[in-house]
Amino acid sequence: MAQISHTVHVALGERAYDILIGPDLLDHAGAILGEKFPGCRYGIVTDTEVARAQLPRLLASLDKAGLAHQTITVPAGESTKSWEHVQIVVEGLLAAKLERNDLVIALGGGVVGDLAGFAASITRRGMDFVQMPTSLLAQVDSSVGGKTGINSPHGKNLVGAFHQPKLVLADLSALDTLSPRQFAAGYAEVVKYGLIDDPEFFEWLEANHAEIFAGGPARGEAIARCCAHKARVVIEDERETGVRALLNLGHTFGHALEKDTGYSDRLLHGEGVSIGMVLAHTFSNRLGLAPGQDAGRVAAHLRKSGLPTTLADIPGSLGSTETLMAAIAQDKKVSRGALTFILTRGIGQAFIEKNVDPAKVSAFLEEMRKA
Amino acid sequence: MAQISHTVHVALGERAYDILIGPDLLDHAGAILGEKFPGCRYGIVTDTEVARAQLPRLLASLDKAGLAHQTITVPAGESTKSWEHVQIVVEGLLAAKLERNDLVIALGGGVVGDLAGFAASITRRGMDFVQMPTSLLAQVDSSVGGKTGINSPHGKNLVGAFHQPKLVLADLSALDTLSPRQFAAGYAEVVKYGLIDDPEFFEWLEANHAEIFAGGPARGEAIARCCAHKARVVIEDERETGVRALLNLGHTFGHALEKDTGYSDRLLHGEGVSIGMVLAHTFSNRLGLAPGQDAGRVAAHLRKSGLPTTLADIPGSLGSTETLMAAIAQDKKVSRGALTFILTRGIGQAFIEKNVDPAKVSAFLEEMRKA
Ligand SMILES: NC(=O)c1ccc[n+]([C@@H]2O[C@H](COP(=O)([O-])OP(=O)(O)OC[C@H]3O[C@@H](n4cnc5c(N)ncnc54)[C@H](O)[C@@H]3O)[C@@H](O)[C@H]2O)c1
Ligand SMILES: NC(=O)c1ccc[n+]([C@@H]2O[C@H](COP(=O)([O-])OP(=O)(O)OC[C@H]3O[C@@H](n4cnc5c(N)ncnc54)[C@H](O)[C@@H]3O)[C@@H](O)[C@H]2O)c1
Ligand SMILES: [Zn+2]
Ligand SMILES: [Zn+2]
Repeated sequence: MAQISHTVHVALGERAYDILIGPDLLDHAGAILGEKFPGCRYGIVTDTEVARAQLPRLLASLDKAGLAHQTITVPAGESTKSWEHVQIVVEGLLAAKLERNDLVIALGGGVVGDLAGFAASITRRGMDFVQMPTSLLAQVDSSVGGKTGINSPHGKNLVGAFHQPKLVLADLSALDTLSPRQFAAGYAEVVKYGLIDDPEFFEWLEANHAEIFAGGPARGEAIARCCAHKARVVIEDERETGVRALLNLGHTFGHALEKDTGYSDRLLHGEGVSIGMVLAHTFSNRLGLAPGQDAGRVAAHLRKSGLPTTLADIPGSLGSTETLMAAIAQDKKVSRGALTFILTRGIGQAFIEKNVDPAKVSAFLEEMRKA
Repeated sequence: MAQISHTVHVALGERAYDILIGPDLLDHAGAILGEKFPGCRYGIVTDTEVARAQLPRLLASLDKAGLAHQTITVPAGESTKSWEHVQIVVEGLLAAKLERNDLVIALGGGVVGDLAGFAASITRRGMDFVQMPTSLLAQVDSSVGGKTGINSPHGKNLVGAFHQPKLVLADLSALDTLSPRQFAAGYAEVVKYGLIDDPEFFEWLEANHAEIFAGGPARGEAIARCCAHKARVVIEDERETGVRALLNLGHTFGHALEKDTGYSDRLLHGEGVSIGMVLAHTFSNRLGLAPGQDAGRVAAHLRKSGLPTTLADIPGSLGSTETLMAAIAQDKKVSRGALTFILTRGIGQAFIEKNVDPAKVSAFLEEMRKA
């Protein structure tokens, strides 16, 4: 029997699904799927690194349950979220003769989840899929909520679909093979949930930090609380016409930095978000909105987690302030000229501000470069 | 003021929309859109032939209404429903800096409608779009109901999305520049609606045939009745889990023939459907389900419309019966081994039969080849 330590229900009516969290779910995936989806065949999408580290456990459990499956392996890394690879995955699912009522499994981090979910959404005009997130970022963020897609030369995530999974299986022990740097990057998104509107959770993270990083029971609890938070937001605003945008706290600055560093190993997504969240708090302070000590407390907690928190922490040299501003203006959270930012009145008090003066952002970035 | 001769409402709840039919709607598209969608910018997708024949009227009316627009032109023909071209269209829409609340216009036949609708559905995770069908087939069938997509090397329409348009504008005079052969091919789908479950409509078509082909008021009425029929079916079964499959009458045989002739000019889609519908009636007769004279009456009406009705009408030589059977078995209406066909008890009495014996189909095809 699989041990399920936490269950989070995403109440989206006819698109409702459960997030199951537990220490060994991949070893029991076959039994869980066989019971929930009788008669289905499976197309597994994963990347080369996850295939090495985690796929054997999944395959063994599918075989044990007598479930038919076929695997499509793509290269690891952000550049796999491309037209080229979505075509490879879709044609692979068709070649495997999967039918509309069969299932796609996304086994991997956010890259595999976004790619496989999008591929499922357009194969035979929509196949169902199951998320099996293996990175911390994917377990607390990308596997929940139905945003799927790939990148365009015009920007990240500009091509895709809203397509909710039928089930999310978050296996806690899968995180044991994740690199510490990737774990820390995912942790930035954990902290984000506290900073948005849950100061008590941020305090709890400060108190339980060591246990979360060591893999104690607080890790599962942290993940479950993040999923519950995200589920709540998604239920309220599935298609991001309002409050869901709060989940972008730290992301406008973060995306600009990711773009500037070429979406490379110089700066992981979560690392950009870490710096971005500190910048969002500091900028809010400069605008007279938030107390300065909150920015300091946020930075201290992220730094303790091994995350970068300042522009100077990014290896190599950054582009000009103009280049960064251009990236910010191109970000999709721009609406007809005005800059939209997630600002804050302090820890746990973020809000959407649609009328930010670009000149103030630019001056603030200048200040930060010199800091 | 635009003359709107017929309006059909597609009552799909929050995805509801209107089909407007009239003699000169392209000349008034700007006024109609400007009123319905204030503040939108437009990305027009069309093909080379329609760009020559109809685009100038649309551009003039958008300009007159002061609406901003940009045009993406793709090659005419079925091979444009491809990965290559969906990528070109999506990247073109992004390059035009269209935002999530702007609109895509599909101006053309079913190829442009399927391609542009799909591109809209995956750009920025879903942009709205308007269908402006310019072929008879598109006006009576493909522009209504939200099926969008492209072809895969594994088969037709295997990649795509369900994505309903916000509005359909069917301009009757656009059909004046359509070739007679294409008009006849579209007419096969008109006849289909009568054959499915509306024998009175089939009789009305027999009586009004000349006026429909000549472009009299019966043409608009025929188109409106087809749209109303399709709307009814789509409302009942938006995602084709049941009755919507009846719209595939004649299509299982037809698709096999299209595949065999390489989706080329040798056999247009509607021409394959024409032969397929006659075969479906004749096969139903051989199975003891339908009177033989109905097949004859169907064939006579289609032949009068300039459509092929027998295998021998297809220019060039056909593949073997085994090849045709393989194509039939690969058709997506196959469910776990058993063959599904739309059969009939006579004109206007079609039904879905999920347990057709492949041996009987094969023997029937052998007979038809020799006929
Ligand atoms: N859909 C959403 O709502 C959403 C939300 C946030 C982020 N995202 C997307 O998620 C992506 C980032 O996700 P990510 O950080 O998981 O990146 P990722 O998928 O690239 O994973 C990071 C690296 O860790 C490896 N890996 C993953 N799990 C492992 C394991 N258990 N053992 C060993 N190696 C493992 C991967 O192979 C990869 O090399 C970005 O593309 C981002 O846009 C999407
Ligand atoms: N989505 C659906 O529900 C659905 C239903 C039926 C068919 N389809 C699809 O529709 C496609 C067939 O559509 P089609 O028959 O319209 O083909 P098409 O779009 O290729 O149009 C046929 C030809 O006529 C030209 N043309 C169109 N309108 C014209 C005009 N007014 N003046 C001059 N030339 C014009 C086109 O350039 C093309 O060369 C197929 O791909 C089929 O799969 C989709
Ligand atoms: Zn993020
Ligand atoms: Zn058809």
